[in-house]
Amino acid sequence: MEDPWQKAYDFAVAVARKAGAEIRKAGESEIRVMTKSSTVDLVTKTDERVEKIIISSLKEEFGEDAHCFIGEESVAKGEPCVLSDKPTWIIDPVDGTTNFKTKKNFSFELLKDDLFKLSFVEFGVVYSCLEDKMYKARKGKGAFCDDEPIQVSDMKDINKSIIISEHGTDRSPEKVTKIFSTMQKILCIPVHGLRGSGTAATNMCLVATGAVEAFFEIGIHCWDIAAGVIIVKEAGGILLDVDGGPFDLMSRRMVSANNELIAKRIIKEIEIFPVGRDDAPAEK
Amino acid sequence: MEDPWQKAYDFAVAVARKAGAEIRKAGESEIRVMTKSSTVDLVTKTDERVEKIIISSLKEEFGEDAHCFIGEESVAKGEPCVLSDKPTWIIDPVDGTTNFKTKKNFSFELLKDDLFKLSFVEFGVVYSCLEDKMYKARKGKGAFCDDEPIQVSDMKDINKSIIISEHGTDRSPEKVTKIFSTMQKILCIPVHGLRGSGTAATNMCLVATGAVEAFFEIGIHCWDIAAGVIIVKEAGGILLDVDGGPFDLMSRRMVSANNELIAKRIIKEIEIFPVGRDDAPAEK
Repeated sequence: MEDPWQKAYDFAVAVARKAGAEIRKAGESEIRVMTKSSTVDLVTKTDERVEKIIISSLKEEFGEDAHCFIGEESVAKGEPCVLSDKPTWIIDPVDGTTNFKTKKNFSFELLKDDLFKLSFVEFGVVYSCLEDKMYKARKGKGAFCDDEPIQVSDMKDINKSIIISEHGTDRSPEKVTKIFSTMQKILCIPVHGLRGSGTAATNMCLVATGAVEAFFEIGIHCWDIAAGVIIVKEAGGILLDVDGGPFDLMSRRMVSANNELIAKRIIKEIEIFPVGRDDAPAEK
Repeated sequence: MEDPWQKAYDFAVAVARKAGAEIRKAGESEIRVMTKSSTVDLVTKTDERVEKIIISSLKEEFGEDAHCFIGEESVAKGEPCVLSDKPTWIIDPVDGTTNFKTKKNFSFELLKDDLFKLSFVEFGVVYSCLEDKMYKARKGKGAFCDDEPIQVSDMKDINKSIIISEHGTDRSPEKVTKIFSTMQKILCIPVHGLRGSGTAATNMCLVATGAVEAFFEIGIHCWDIAAGVIIVKEAGGILLDVDGGPFDLMSRRMVSANNELIAKRIIKEIEIFPVGRDDAPAEK
């Protein structure tokens, strides 16, 4: 009873591995003969199937109504996306859909971030299934990659820092202009470099392992980052809102960084644009 | 005699592996205890040492004066950077210096592109030594990753394409503004997404494996791309100048893409800024 979440944490890791095997199998068996455009459908189908596997595994383990679930696929179908008092799992079965088109055996990171993520208030799991790397963290117990502890960079000099971000999927001119303007101002602080892997979860794991100093984005969803948030925190990093205020999982705005100095310096340059909250009531 | 370069090609692969082991060793033994700023010095030292190992291995094998060499480190020290009639090796011992700071065991791509590249008019080798992937290609004989053939994406729809580029190291406002303006225009074609791994050689291997459709950059050096050029070509891709004209290895301008359609569409958006050629006479 003194560690009520250990069982759930262990179970999440096991489910992640099982779902990852499913994703790998879909990739290996079917993807070689497909064109890129038909791959998109395969990903959607795999996404839905894997989300179902995960949720049914968790319900079987913990009881039909004991926990709540927020999943990208179920939200897309109109299910609610709100945090309640009940334990809630936030699930993103296959992140990096366009990166799913990988052929087996070519394990570039951009090919590899078929990530499988499970997160909980208490813990987070990001499984990069094609490269078979399990990132995980539990509140107060540290962050790990394949059971080796990970930690954020000790860099305090913004000029030597690498910042990672994404352009998002919204192509409306005013948003795109603000995104590029922000990136340009950050590059010209100057920082050492800007990167973009294509996937928020990957970017957060890069912060957690110390490969980059900070990741920020406006427009991400809770299922893109929930697991990463705990992994970054437990690796010694910090989370803030893009305006410097407290981080809010449902706000779709986030800066994750190795320390407050780097985070606050970046925040000075971020041009904020409005995005609806994840938990906003559905529009009629 | 009918295949005079096979021996050199095989030797290049063997030297790449040997040099890669050296780079890995430096990373594993020393890097754990260093701060990021001192890592930069380690990389420089490793860079110089590995370039020496390569050049002396090649001289030993092929004779002291049989071949010419262009290496990032030797050019930095004032040695000439010109292609002559003699067989010329173009060498970049450790690409992605800032990515060299990886800790062992965390093999994200962004951590991993401690690439080791050897190239030749006849062939090219890119060794991603931390993940132990050997990319190679020989003129007319195809491109491979770890002996498996690779090929570019078959995508013809620019709107479904992923484009990869870099912001470079020059922070002068007029260049940075043109780089961002180009990226924004390309994103808003629209394309599916923009990426940046931090390393030209990685980006070109991503084109060659079909993970992304195109990579372009102004300001790269011949040693950043020489091996990748042959790998992309042999994987079925094309190379063009950023103005749509023929590609020139020494011009520091390049578009590499899966096909001409995608390349030409991107070229329409590229805002060109002047960069000195690699083979320009040294300034007095």
